[in-house]
Amino acid sequence: MEQLLAIMPLSEQQRSTVRNMGVNIVTADDIARKQVAPDDITIMYGWNAEISLPVLKAPHSHLKWIQTFSAGVDYLPLSEIAQHHIVVTNASGIHGPAIAQAILGYIFYFTRGLWTAEQRRPERFWEQSADDLLVADETSAIIFSTGHIAVETARLLHQMNVYVAGVNRTGHPADNFDETYAIDDYQKGLAKADIIINVMPGTPATTGFFNQQFFDQLDHKLLFINVGRGSSVVNDALLNALKQGRVKYAALDVVDPEPLPKDSPLWANDHILLTPHVSGVVDHLDTRLFPILYDNLKTFVSTGLVSRNQVDLSAGY
Amino acid sequence: MEQLLAIMPLSEQQRSTVRNMGVNIVTADDIARKQVAPDDITIMYGWNAEISLPVLKAPHSHLKWIQTFSAGVDYLPLSEIAQHHIVVTNASGIHGPAIAQAILGYIFYFTRGLWTAEQRRPERFWEQSADDLLVADETSAIIFSTGHIAVETARLLHQMNVYVAGVNRTGHPADNFDETYAIDDYQKGLAKADIIINVMPGTPATTGFFNQQFFDQLDHKLLFINVGRGSSVVNDALLNALKQGRVKYAALDVVDPEPLPKDSPLWANDHILLTPHVSGVVDHLDTRLFPILYDNLKTFVSTGLVSRNQVDLSAGY
Repeated sequence: MEQLLAIMPLSEQQRSTVRNMGVNIVTADDIARKQVAPDDITIMYGWNAEISLPVLKAPHSHLKWIQTFSAGVDYLPLSEIAQHHIVVTNASGIHGPAIAQAILGYIFYFTRGLWTAEQRRPERFWEQSADDLLVADETSAIIFSTGHIAVETARLLHQMNVYVAGVNRTGHPADNFDETYAIDDYQKGLAKADIIINVMPGTPATTGFFNQQFFDQLDHKLLFINVGRGSSVVNDALLNALKQGRVKYAALDVVDPEPLPKDSPLWANDHILLTPHVSGVVDHLDTRLFPILYDNLKTFVSTGLVSRNQVDLSAGY
Repeated sequence: MEQLLAIMPLSEQQRSTVRNMGVNIVTADDIARKQVAPDDITIMYGWNAEISLPVLKAPHSHLKWIQTFSAGVDYLPLSEIAQHHIVVTNASGIHGPAIAQAILGYIFYFTRGLWTAEQRRPERFWEQSADDLLVADETSAIIFSTGHIAVETARLLHQMNVYVAGVNRTGHPADNFDETYAIDDYQKGLAKADIIINVMPGTPATTGFFNQQFFDQLDHKLLFINVGRGSSVVNDALLNALKQGRVKYAALDVVDPEPLPKDSPLWANDHILLTPHVSGVVDHLDTRLFPILYDNLKTFVSTGLVSRNQVDLSAGY
């Protein structure tokens, strides 16, 4: 019988659904009270290092599958997980609307006068003007990634007649994008864009991607947005680009390191909007996540295989 | 021959289009240099009190039609214009996308963590949390107005699965609204809404509409947005409602009076986002406005009638 360690909360109804599939539900309390041995856990629903690492590292661990609550999985010990042939499924798809809406919030913060108004507020200065007032149909965007979050972002931007280019590994087409470019040949798309949006996962390949060389290509861009991972951006390179006017504003929901230290020069630049890695936070996460667990459990109990959202452990997403 | 006073700029191409319709173009300079008498103007494109009032008040004025550059026309001397049987056409439709995008900006400012982040910024306090993080599909909205701006706002909110109610004079249905209510019977719609959006024009009927009695109906609403007219909101009543938690946040692009005096208590309330009447500002206004002038000129030169965007001078919009 499968033993599912429920780190994410399960409602009464969800618990009974899981049990009816022949899966036993275990809690961290059960392990702490030694009613269940960490070795016995076969499925982990959620991740909490303090609870999860002892399960992963148990000498006779039977762990076969981890269902995470996030799209990115860079906080997991991926190589150790891969060594043990454990399957990881993520929450890709759930956070798309939240992050896409956050991205619209960042764009309109700068293009509909909110930024200027906030800058003037300490002086209580009200004047019927603002910098950079633009209607979306006058702007174009390039999104690094054409995954779920990027597709939802492109869909919404399209509704406002923004021209949207996407960047992925091979340049293959993707829903809601006007055009797509390969990651090693994106320069033509970048040249057209006013708004640059990073949604790429944190992997060895994306670490430091937005470096001095990247920013040196820019000329009077409006806005750089990072909702991917802080590790993809070289902070000094971004700060230089802002100083040189290569890009006028930045909105960073993710930074390196997190939490951002008080002495980081990012704080001191008022052309940077900083939010604390909350763009993907959704209310009712348990309700939104359960269908992914459920679909995967259905096949897992009969075939030992998951049916959706499986992470490629070597690629890291 | 019609004499069009061009207060709004016209491009070379636009000028030749107008002239080819048999319309003469006059500038404020022509009047100042007495090359054309104010009495001779028959059409005014735009409005600037200093230039326009002498034309309107000229003893033998031939003014027949004013094409404004704004959706609201409450800054015009409407009763005097009506007395002289002058037709007014507005720019309704042009500002819709700009204002709808500003409204999304205000909503996501509060629901995607920007407000909280800005509050914490002076202390350089970065913590992976924020107040009131919501995905749009968890919210519902009520829009006072079902005109062009409201319809575009409802369209975009619908794209994010927001339930949207509208309020108009009779409760007649309108595009993109889930339901509509009459202005004297909107309470059921209001009860369901988290976000209240005023887009109504400034008229005697809407002055002071959002008063103490209105706000006393509210219970734990998330956000009150005003992009209509400042005169529609009783400031003290809004401030009381915020203090009592009847509504948590407000976003005011329009206020009464404008400019907002430095001693206004609205400034002191950090739950109010204030922008300086810029939600409707569009880039390339001349390009966007000309098609309305053109359509109206076509019929005006042959029949003396305009074909679109005519303002009901008694209603004021």
